[in-house]
Amino acid sequence: MADKNNAARAPKAQDVLQAAERIAGRVHRTPVFTSRSLNALCEAEVFFKAENMQKVGAFKFRGATNAVLCLGEGVRDGVVTHSSGNHAQALALAARLASVPARIVMPKNAPAPKRAAVEGYGARVFFSEPTQAAREELTREIIEEQGGVFIHPYDNPNVIAGQGTAALELLQQVEGLDGLIAPVGGGGLLSGTLLAAAHSGQRLLVFGGEPAGADDAARSLASGQRRPMDHPSTVADGLRTSLGELTFPIIRDMAADILLAEDTRIIEAMRLIWERLKLVVEPSGAVPLAALLAHKERFAGRRVGIILSGGNVDLNQLPWRSS
Amino acid sequence: MADKNNAARAPKAQDVLQAAERIAGRVHRTPVFTSRSLNALCEAEVFFKAENMQKVGAFKFRGATNAVLCLGEGVRDGVVTHSSGNHAQALALAARLASVPARIVMPKNAPAPKRAAVEGYGARVFFSEPTQAAREELTREIIEEQGGVFIHPYDNPNVIAGQGTAALELLQQVEGLDGLIAPVGGGGLLSGTLLAAAHSGQRLLVFGGEPAGADDAARSLASGQRRPMDHPSTVADGLRTSLGELTFPIIRDMAADILLAEDTRIIEAMRLIWERLKLVVEPSGAVPLAALLAHKERFAGRRVGIILSGGNVDLNQLPWRSS
Repeated sequence: MADKNNAARAPKAQDVLQAAERIAGRVHRTPVFTSRSLNALCEAEVFFKAENMQKVGAFKFRGATNAVLCLGEGVRDGVVTHSSGNHAQALALAARLASVPARIVMPKNAPAPKRAAVEGYGARVFFSEPTQAAREELTREIIEEQGGVFIHPYDNPNVIAGQGTAALELLQQVEGLDGLIAPVGGGGLLSGTLLAAAHSGQRLLVFGGEPAGADDAARSLASGQRRPMDHPSTVADGLRTSLGELTFPIIRDMAADILLAEDTRIIEAMRLIWERLKLVVEPSGAVPLAALLAHKERFAGRRVGIILSGGNVDLNQLPWRSS
Repeated sequence: MADKNNAARAPKAQDVLQAAERIAGRVHRTPVFTSRSLNALCEAEVFFKAENMQKVGAFKFRGATNAVLCLGEGVRDGVVTHSSGNHAQALALAARLASVPARIVMPKNAPAPKRAAVEGYGARVFFSEPTQAAREELTREIIEEQGGVFIHPYDNPNVIAGQGTAALELLQQVEGLDGLIAPVGGGGLLSGTLLAAAHSGQRLLVFGGEPAGADDAARSLASGQRRPMDHPSTVADGLRTSLGELTFPIIRDMAADILLAEDTRIIEAMRLIWERLKLVVEPSGAVPLAALLAHKERFAGRRVGIILSGGNVDLNQLPWRSS
């Protein structure tokens, strides 16, 4: 669905810096962690940017906050989105902190805790049939009847610029990185990371880490055309979306490569992060480490930054057997 | 069993400062985390000292490192202990880093991963029958035949002083604390914390958080006499031990109180820490938060430091139902 604030304007590297200034003090400057045992396993020096410790437990709060603050006058009618994931919570909290109403369309089969979290941040939740078409249709109806600005979860220049601030911080926190790996689903975080790296002027390669079962970014780059995927299948539930109109060209033009990881590797990497770093990350957040481990030879001896994108996981539904 | 290095010498507040100088650069200065949602829940400002991120995943590495470094000439024959928990790993790694042999007695029913971890740090493991008497007897035999200095997991002044460095750091990292809560099992961490608080000269109360099913410290303080417990029953496996000869008088004389928490509260607190702080802590590490929540009225509006003592938990055996 079209985003009227999208304005068909591709974000630039400079926008990430402006986003960082705009959202400073409103988002957490998250810490960076390292582990000798993980370095030994990766045969590289790895720096983990803990966006699982960001407000609402995910980097999505950065983009949502930047998007809300960019609205200016348009903000009075509030913001609207459709999402059952971290963007829903992020936009709900960003709106509340800006004293703006938020309306969130969720599929009616969304887990109760996700609805409760969004409502806990003061947003109003609307339920649609669980199809993409139904979600978009209901969102359109709400905007027509009640007003409000649609904030796309990734195909929005202000969202992309906001997501890039995580990498901008990481590049300030750790010197001399040779590479960065960000997970890629819709591509908002990876696009922002690419812009941040470009702005830094540092010579470093930026990779996307993508689940093999939701490899639309890899296919799109290989074919040179956007190839949305109808039935992705991966444990990394935050990465089942496909690249958008804004994110695809940025990634096509600037990413060093898309590195795929199988679900078994993603689950292994998630356990490694829990056990070695003592950090709770969701499967999507473990994809960059899984991608690194699946392509170790490309990073041997290098200094690599990884964005642990989020930590919202149902502790009753872990992807390994627990007695 | 007697510890010949114990020297019946009670550690003093000054020893914690010396321990901190001795182990500086060899242990992690662990970060402190906060959470608005946990503050709201606790109706207090709570500061979590992340010793789950310490080397070997627990504060025990502090005491073990200090004890090994204090040995001087006695170190040539190496160190010996009996433990199946974090102390075993901590002493194994501390010894390896000091290029000293370590011999660890474990009950023969200890989980294979615990044995593997200790051996991974280069220690030699000996298996005893799974009784306290058998462990102590085998330890004595090993020392008689092969030499080595026994390092008790908590009833050793250098171990106690080392454990106190966690609180010493916390008091440097956070100003104006009104209280501290440390978990209490054998009492090494709580004793060290009490000494660190005394050394700081700050006016603050130090509490022990103890599982209701292993409440020997509470009973000992109530009766004025050490009351070891034969059959403790709690999910907090690191806190099933009873106070020692050295730790009991320190705790009796200096602790503000021992706060009990039921296992259901401990498991709830553990989940809260995983969900809100995104930190993996073991059940024992969640006991102080459980104790705070069970005695909220005593901390209303206060600034409270909590020591998250460790993060070594079997992810296949979580204390809640997972599908």
